Amino acid sequence: MAEVSASLMARIQDLAGERSLAIKPILVGSAARGTWLANDHDLDIFLGVAPGDNLAAALEVARAVAPQHEEKYAEHAYVHARVDGYDVDLVPCYLVAAAADLQSAVDRTPFHAKYVSSRIQGREDEVLLLKQFMKGVGVYGSELKVGGFSGYLAELLILFYGSFAEVLQAAGSWRPGQRLDPEGHGTAKHIEPLIVVDPVDPGRNVAAALTLDKMLLFVCACRAFLAGPDVDFFSPQRPDPLSDEQLSLLLEARGTLPILIDFEAPPVVEDVLYPQLRKAEESISALLERSGFSVMRSDIASYRDRALLLFEMEVWLLPAAARRMGPPVWEAEHLARFLAAHPMPLSGPYIREGKAVVEEPRAYPLAPDLLKAKLFGLSLGRHLGPALRRGYDIYCGREILQIKDEGFRTFLAGFFEARLRIGLL
Amino acid sequence: MAEVSASLMARIQDLAGERSLAIKPILVGSAARGTWLANDHDLDIFLGVAPGDNLAAALEVARAVAPQHEEKYAEHAYVHARVDGYDVDLVPCYLVAAAADLQSAVDRTPFHAKYVSSRIQGREDEVLLLKQFMKGVGVYGSELKVGGFSGYLAELLILFYGSFAEVLQAAGSWRPGQRLDPEGHGTAKHIEPLIVVDPVDPGRNVAAALTLDKMLLFVCACRAFLAGPDVDFFSPQRPDPLSDEQLSLLLEARGTLPILIDFEAPPVVEDVLYPQLRKAEESISALLERSGFSVMRSDIASYRDRALLLFEMEVWLLPAAARRMGPPVWEAEHLARFLAAHPMPLSGPYIREGKAVVEEPRAYPLAPDLLKAKLFGLSLGRHLGPALRRGYDIYCGREILQIKDEGFRTFLAGFFEARLRIGLL
Repeated sequence: MAEVSASLMARIQDLAGERSLAIKPILVGSAARGTWLANDHDLDIFLGVAPGDNLAAALEVARAVAPQHEEKYAEHAYVHARVDGYDVDLVPCYLVAAAADLQSAVDRTPFHAKYVSSRIQGREDEVLLLKQFMKGVGVYGSELKVGGFSGYLAELLILFYGSFAEVLQAAGSWRPGQRLDPEGHGTAKHIEPLIVVDPVDPGRNVAAALTLDKMLLFVCACRAFLAGPDVDFFSPQRPDPLSDEQLSLLLEARGTLPILIDFEAPPVVEDVLYPQLRKAEESISALLERSGFSVMRSDIASYRDRALLLFEMEVWLLPAAARRMGPPVWEAEHLARFLAAHPMPLSGPYIREGKAVVEEPRAYPLAPDLLKAKLFGLSLGRHLGPALRRGYDIYCGREILQIKDEGFRTFLAGFFEARLRIGLL
Repeated sequence: MAEVSASLMARIQDLAGERSLAIKPILVGSAARGTWLANDHDLDIFLGVAPGDNLAAALEVARAVAPQHEEKYAEHAYVHARVDGYDVDLVPCYLVAAAADLQSAVDRTPFHAKYVSSRIQGREDEVLLLKQFMKGVGVYGSELKVGGFSGYLAELLILFYGSFAEVLQAAGSWRPGQRLDPEGHGTAKHIEPLIVVDPVDPGRNVAAALTLDKMLLFVCACRAFLAGPDVDFFSPQRPDPLSDEQLSLLLEARGTLPILIDFEAPPVVEDVLYPQLRKAEESISALLERSGFSVMRSDIASYRDRALLLFEMEVWLLPAAARRMGPPVWEAEHLARFLAAHPMPLSGPYIREGKAVVEEPRAYPLAPDLLKAKLFGLSLGRHLGPALRRGYDIYCGREILQIKDEGFRTFLAGFFEARLRIGLL
């Protein structure tokens, strides 16, 4: 890893020299400080330019370093390439004087690298234990798909508490709202469940991407491990894909109706895709619930080039008659509009708890019909809306058996089982 | 009416004399002040005794006045009899010096009689118009079955506003919380939707029995009548009983599932029965809703010697799998108890919004089964609980066609139609 990174950095300097550009290559991330996990083959090299300089020229250099590359985009464009078995990210950034001056989130990374490198020596193994533990229990990764702990956050926890064991001991009694401020310089209020003030940026919460449920899963895991330490905690559990027969039996035993919306994923990175999938999931659940249906559970996923929204329905069929609540009857104008809009009810109008009520024929007694009719009226996300408009399939109940993809069947296994490691909770 | 009441009062005095009792017969209610409606044949005669004296002796006299009587019970026992075509109530009461000294609610009545009699002369017709209007639109009667306006309240409104037309004008813009205090002496806060401070008792709300919906029905009726006066407003509407065919068609069109609990009414007056029926209705609805079922509408009634609770279900069948929310996972003791109570879930335990969740087989996927299993665990009312324990029948869906009783079918017509007079709302 040292060889590969050294050679890449030399190549950056050569190419910059040829073009008379001032570019400083910086190795960041776990590779820079000896805290990478055995199966990680990620190399993050930043191409630093002075704040006034041209970021596009640095991107050009990155492209030239790895002719076989893929261009990606977070806040800025960057280059991803596979070099000698390593996943290399080449990221242009500004070399600002202090973290407070940063122009983009990536400009902060060199400060993190510097802060951790100078303090972590001798405790790299503690970091590795903690990272692998987090990976094993399913809370490692700050990407939005996971909503877990970043590597930097794991390192800060080791620096703050001292060791793997001490982190577990302390985290076992965390509650939502827990706040850590290693440098005692926090300046902002945060609403996230865990707040770890960034040592290099007093206004930032390093744990901002951590969701409540991933935080609490970690809390439970810490307690469970201390109560009964086991090497198994360090191995991620991945369910086996469901066979047709297993899936059939599951559907029968549950008696629910899965409704699956399956479509071609828009060509964006997961950090862009997943928040939009979550947003669509919420919009659709809200539509179903306010129409009288009931969603037992829902989830989102992507597999191959597909994205999906899954709703497991507890109530998906409603009677022909639907109740519609109107305004308080003393609001004469609202009332008149409401009554004009419902001239031929099945029952009513009558007054209930002060409000006008009518009962009328239900437009969509079946949840999938409602979904098809109302989907494009919902707020679906910038890339997801167009992707769905290009076409989608709805699978109801046993129709999901038609999708044989292993990634999909593994997702379903996790969805229906939904069981945390025995003894973890 | 004058003859009948005079003869009854003379008879009371004779019988009291024979027994050396000091009993003062008092004619109260609308008969005493010329504000009775044509179809009313109610005579209310109170038997007043001094506060120290024996109420039981007065009751004995009441029994002797009308040998063919029925004994009833509100706060005290009283006698009801049919005399020369009149429904006569003979009610023992204490002759307290001021309304504030009363020992029972009935002791207040002579004060009401006195207050209204001395002021209403010349406006009896206005009272009659208002009472008949209230009867026509279905808000007349302060008994708990109706939850409407009492005769005394109607009289106070005429005294306060001046005339029938002025009451309608003013009431058309009432909102919940409207307060009237004719004597300007109110001393207490009240939470009821309409507050009319009793002129003879500053702490009492004369409109305490008026429900929000009956109040607002009156408000709407006042507006509608002023916008389009019609003699029809003065005629109560009573729907025709539903034929088998009409009922079949209605059930089919609505697609809901009526669940009817039918049982022998306990031997208590309606003012005791109806609050208990409402309480049982609420307890049962809450049970159904918290178990995941959905009640579109419910109502209660009595017919012949029967009482009934009717629930029109929007959702009455749920899947085999049920979701059960546990405590927040950081409440370690609660969590341990919850997990111990659900050792073999279908799915889970998992964490959702900070709480432990399991999914397990549902004990009662059908609403009627849940009802049968849990009914006697509910709070059902003092007389209703024992009455239900003596036996009840459950009718679901088309099974309600088995009950042919005209009173029941009329109730059903009102329930399913639930339509207010056209143009009233």
